[in-house]
Amino acid sequence: MALVVGIAGGTASGKTTVARKVHEAMETSGVSFIDQDSYYRDLAHLTHEERREVNFDHPDAFDTELLVAHLKALKAGRAVDKPVYDYVESTRTARTTPVHPAELILIEGILVLHMEPLRKELDVRIFVETEDDVRIIRRLTRDIKERGRDFDHVVSQYFRHVRPMHMAFIEPSKRWADIVVPHGGNNDIAIDMLVGALKSRLLKRR
Amino acid sequence: MALVVGIAGGTASGKTTVARKVHEAMETSGVSFIDQDSYYRDLAHLTHEERREVNFDHPDAFDTELLVAHLKALKAGRAVDKPVYDYVESTRTARTTPVHPAELILIEGILVLHMEPLRKELDVRIFVETEDDVRIIRRLTRDIKERGRDFDHVVSQYFRHVRPMHMAFIEPSKRWADIVVPHGGNNDIAIDMLVGALKSRLLKRR
Repeated sequence: MALVVGIAGGTASGKTTVARKVHEAMETSGVSFIDQDSYYRDLAHLTHEERREVNFDHPDAFDTELLVAHLKALKAGRAVDKPVYDYVESTRTARTTPVHPAELILIEGILVLHMEPLRKELDVRIFVETEDDVRIIRRLTRDIKERGRDFDHVVSQYFRHVRPMHMAFIEPSKRWADIVVPHGGNNDIAIDMLVGALKSRLLKRR
Repeated sequence: MALVVGIAGGTASGKTTVARKVHEAMETSGVSFIDQDSYYRDLAHLTHEERREVNFDHPDAFDTELLVAHLKALKAGRAVDKPVYDYVESTRTARTTPVHPAELILIEGILVLHMEPLRKELDVRIFVETEDDVRIIRRLTRDIKERGRDFDHVVSQYFRHVRPMHMAFIEPSKRWADIVVPHGGNNDIAIDMLVGALKSRLLKRR
């Protein structure tokens, strides 16, 4: 039976870095990696105007049914075809990425601990916690420098959707965490400890 | 070189339980255990009236110099004589407990992460975080039922010393933590992970 580990945290908290470093350090080909972002709902039925109004930080923006179905399939030893999302068009593309079943399943995303049907499939629940001001600076840097977004647009989206959803859903989901990783992706002691802990758990299961 | 692990947290947060469970689960005789409470300053020079006024939750209540000296001795491979404190008289007794050097040194106490000379000796910094209302209920239960204290006395001490010092020193010291353990001593998944992580670290050092 696979060990299922969920890694949640706010935008730009470093959760993706934590997940990637844990993945790399596990020294095993046996990791199934699932990112919640790939499971955004297909908005092809909406106009472009309507798509711009969608709150992508709300739980309803995600196709949690499909994500949970994929997770259950992986746990049962079956490969799945993870959707490939087009973030510009807000649509699910015709392409998919194969994910093979493995002894360790890592699931990463902002609402991984919030969603009850997903949460109850997790064996280990991790919350990556980074201070709010550090997170918004990282988000601004990433969205402006790497994605060419406009400063005012990022700020307005932050106040309109990102921050309220963080306060309503993401931050409160920390109460479900078994372990909290402060300082995000640069906390190498915590990442090293997570890796040691997961390896030890996997050894016990073999 | 020993691995030095500090476990901090507020009163009745479960930090002692976490430390004890980690200690027991390490399956090694090689643990040196230090509790900060044994290093309260000797107040024999004060009247009983004066001793009752002392703030035992303030950093100055502890003989941090001796604690750090003992920690450095253990790291250097020398045994130490840990003080035995008389909590009723607020004095250091003539007795001591021998602590032998080992590959893992566990230090537990409310201010283990606050004190800079102590903090910089730690390889892994753990903060046990339990909600404030749960902590005060546990503290009341323990002090009234197990220690025969008066409800009003516990509450007045809580507002006078325990709570302000928690807000001033203990809670802010969480920022130094490498890992945060929520829900205190009953969080068996976190304790199990800590044990796995520490074992893995010790193996790498051998």
